[in-house]
Amino acid sequence: MEAGQQKGMERFFKPRSIAIVGVSTKSFRFGGLSFLQKFQECCFPGRIYPVHPRASEIRGLKAYPSLRSLPETPDLVVVCVPADSVPGVLRECGEIGVGCVHILSSGFKELGTAEGQRLEEEVASIAREQGLLVMGPNCMGPYCPEGRVTPWGAIPGLAGPVGVISQSGTLTQRITEYLCSLGMGVSKAASFGNAAVLDAVDLLEFLGRDEETHAVAMYLEGVPDGRRFLKRARGVNAIKPVVLWRGGESEAGQWAARSHTGSMAGARHLWEAFYRQSGVTRVESMDELVDAVFALLLLPKPQGRRVFLLGGGGGTSVVSGDACVRAGLEVASLSASTLEALRRMVPAVGSIAGNPLDYWRAYEDAQELIRILELAFEDPSVDMIVVDRMIPRAAYHMPETAADASSEVIEYMEQNSRKKPVVFTVDFGGGDPDLTLRGSSLVARFCRAGLPAYPGLVRALRALAHLCRRYEGLRLRGPDQGTSL
Amino acid sequence: MEAGQQKGMERFFKPRSIAIVGVSTKSFRFGGLSFLQKFQECCFPGRIYPVHPRASEIRGLKAYPSLRSLPETPDLVVVCVPADSVPGVLRECGEIGVGCVHILSSGFKELGTAEGQRLEEEVASIAREQGLLVMGPNCMGPYCPEGRVTPWGAIPGLAGPVGVISQSGTLTQRITEYLCSLGMGVSKAASFGNAAVLDAVDLLEFLGRDEETHAVAMYLEGVPDGRRFLKRARGVNAIKPVVLWRGGESEAGQWAARSHTGSMAGARHLWEAFYRQSGVTRVESMDELVDAVFALLLLPKPQGRRVFLLGGGGGTSVVSGDACVRAGLEVASLSASTLEALRRMVPAVGSIAGNPLDYWRAYEDAQELIRILELAFEDPSVDMIVVDRMIPRAAYHMPETAADASSEVIEYMEQNSRKKPVVFTVDFGGGDPDLTLRGSSLVARFCRAGLPAYPGLVRALRALAHLCRRYEGLRLRGPDQGTSL
Repeated sequence: MEAGQQKGMERFFKPRSIAIVGVSTKSFRFGGLSFLQKFQECCFPGRIYPVHPRASEIRGLKAYPSLRSLPETPDLVVVCVPADSVPGVLRECGEIGVGCVHILSSGFKELGTAEGQRLEEEVASIAREQGLLVMGPNCMGPYCPEGRVTPWGAIPGLAGPVGVISQSGTLTQRITEYLCSLGMGVSKAASFGNAAVLDAVDLLEFLGRDEETHAVAMYLEGVPDGRRFLKRARGVNAIKPVVLWRGGESEAGQWAARSHTGSMAGARHLWEAFYRQSGVTRVESMDELVDAVFALLLLPKPQGRRVFLLGGGGGTSVVSGDACVRAGLEVASLSASTLEALRRMVPAVGSIAGNPLDYWRAYEDAQELIRILELAFEDPSVDMIVVDRMIPRAAYHMPETAADASSEVIEYMEQNSRKKPVVFTVDFGGGDPDLTLRGSSLVARFCRAGLPAYPGLVRALRALAHLCRRYEGLRLRGPDQGTSL
Repeated sequence: MEAGQQKGMERFFKPRSIAIVGVSTKSFRFGGLSFLQKFQECCFPGRIYPVHPRASEIRGLKAYPSLRSLPETPDLVVVCVPADSVPGVLRECGEIGVGCVHILSSGFKELGTAEGQRLEEEVASIAREQGLLVMGPNCMGPYCPEGRVTPWGAIPGLAGPVGVISQSGTLTQRITEYLCSLGMGVSKAASFGNAAVLDAVDLLEFLGRDEETHAVAMYLEGVPDGRRFLKRARGVNAIKPVVLWRGGESEAGQWAARSHTGSMAGARHLWEAFYRQSGVTRVESMDELVDAVFALLLLPKPQGRRVFLLGGGGGTSVVSGDACVRAGLEVASLSASTLEALRRMVPAVGSIAGNPLDYWRAYEDAQELIRILELAFEDPSVDMIVVDRMIPRAAYHMPETAADASSEVIEYMEQNSRKKPVVFTVDFGGGDPDLTLRGSSLVARFCRAGLPAYPGLVRALRALAHLCRRYEGLRLRGPDQGTSL
């Protein structure tokens, strides 16, 4: 990608002016009007121009009958007219020299009709002729909290280190909200739909070079050029984590993918080779996507797969050990000195001094918990640490007045988070709405402090397994990767 | 089990009087005092006798210096004294003719010491000599909302159809609370710890015969007699679903299990054979345990593994198809007449008329959703139905004023729940505490209406896969099972 195109694509995310073509004048309806409303709600600081054939004003803004009649050439045009009117709008964009076009409209290749296919080819060909950068059709387009371009989701979003590339509007919205509500934040997100012009590889290249982006989360249903994608993904992943959730892995999913974005999902063995050769992290759900991004972005490199589990509850210790092994990790055999120190701290009756460690007091007494963390940091047989269940009082109906170590532990961890990978799990499964609320708030509190926290041990261990795989993969592929970016 | 012992064991759960031996007079401390307090809070209707060597009154109740000095023989004695004093208390129980004893105290076989082992053997031998029914040691004991014996957890609990047998106190508490907060309710729960006298097989036999119990959820770390357990589990499972979560499946878990309840977890191949021959449902986490119990208790028998997925969102449809296949289920190929009917209802642009079905309107318009359910009920190619994502407005920032089909759908389903297995999923992942609260409340609302609802598609599909396996297993093992109970 040339420097010019990189700069041109930035205008999708930080435009100085936006025109919306196809704004209904009726009350709430998804499309041009809802986009206009959301641009206003997110306090977009630039100029907004609604384009409507007859209206003179919409939602307090002066409306224009055409792109040609605007007082300036907008940086970004959002196209919301019916599919068969889109080529005309694109030609107009070309005429006045627009750079970036987001086509929200659907009714193209994803219909599976000859007419839909023809229209999409026309869009691509006009874009090529006119040198237009086009996102879409059939997508939610660009999103950037820093540029106050957040036309969907929880307004105004949160600026942060994660770039998102997605072929599904619904899922892009959920992924960005997920990242924002956990305090992770989004640098730039792009819902690119049918990819008639700009595709996943273009966007990945762009985010690879984007200084505000430190990890890339992707949802894809297909890529047009596997070889190009592999090369790019390998290059970007060597310098920032790339996590890929692929829709259409199964035959049933492929059928839906064709109807959704007209994508062909491709043969399984090619994808296996892609993951192996690119080192890209492979996930199978939105939870796993977000969990993995958290771990890969925030945690230091682990030296191996040996986990120390601080649990609490005898049965919990038993099932924690099982879960660790099922996740493909190892339960660390603690060194003799660590074991001795733990046995001095932890009473023999009603607790288990070992790994997993069963020691309730650590959740009430921050100093005890910190002492245990320090033992685990010092023990060379421990590669990673899980602190399981930080909300025992509410969950176990202990008196509300009991102490809670969370705040002090967060403070300690903020100073010591690079020593070894440490994750927290907050136990709030069980359907009680009050407990669920407390638990999810506590997860968010940890995450906002930059400490990966998960609503359950299985998810925490899965994220740690991704962390190990990433570094093992980078090592296996040698030190020379990354030069291709 | 003889009728006499069945009747005797009922006294654990519905005692007329309870003595607690070893009640500290200090402020809150886990043990005798916390049990006494909880018995008072749950409004236990019978007599409660604290036993303390010197105190004359504890928490407003007359205290007695010994069991011998009580005005009557209590139905249940809860033993909370240090381990080495337990044999003496048991002898006293024998002398005055107590039937049921719950030993809360730990410090026995689970310590791994010769003294712990010896004490546990002494407990077992006294129980045998005196004909005492003993639960424990090292456990939370009996729990029964109907009998107002709920000495732990969310007081007073909820009476319902699920029996719980568990070797972990912590996990028993979480499982019972989970069932209660989702409106499922517990008939009887038993946390039995080291199983010195009564073991999992005795308790399973008891619950198998118990008329208030319609499904059994178990957490076990080991069984002393595999052959006896297989016979009993097969018999009970033929008439009511038995779901088993086994702790200590891995070597690491086994280590912890030995320290926790002194259990030996046994060889993997024996357990594989157990599941195959008993038909018991095998789960690997608390979520999966509760999810499976919900499905097995509430849903009718499926005719096969073909699922109809009502989704909403193009990307969601794609990943739903994938998730279905990963769960070992099939995405149903709808019959021609169903497809035709769906195509007449669902607009071509922006939706996908097929399976998975992408049709937003169904979530706002209950009549549309009910029409789709009816099409799926009538289609012979559909065995099971998933209605995915019942909380789109909050999750997608749609206006709060938009209609919500949930109430009408619940009402319709209450009349039609036996037609085919139908499950609901409520989309509230993403860490936003407000959304989490709304979502978990909606899950609970469905569950309380007797409709299995899950906080995510993967969990819903996993539960349906358990449902299929249960009926396939019962068919394979022929019609003659169940006679051994």
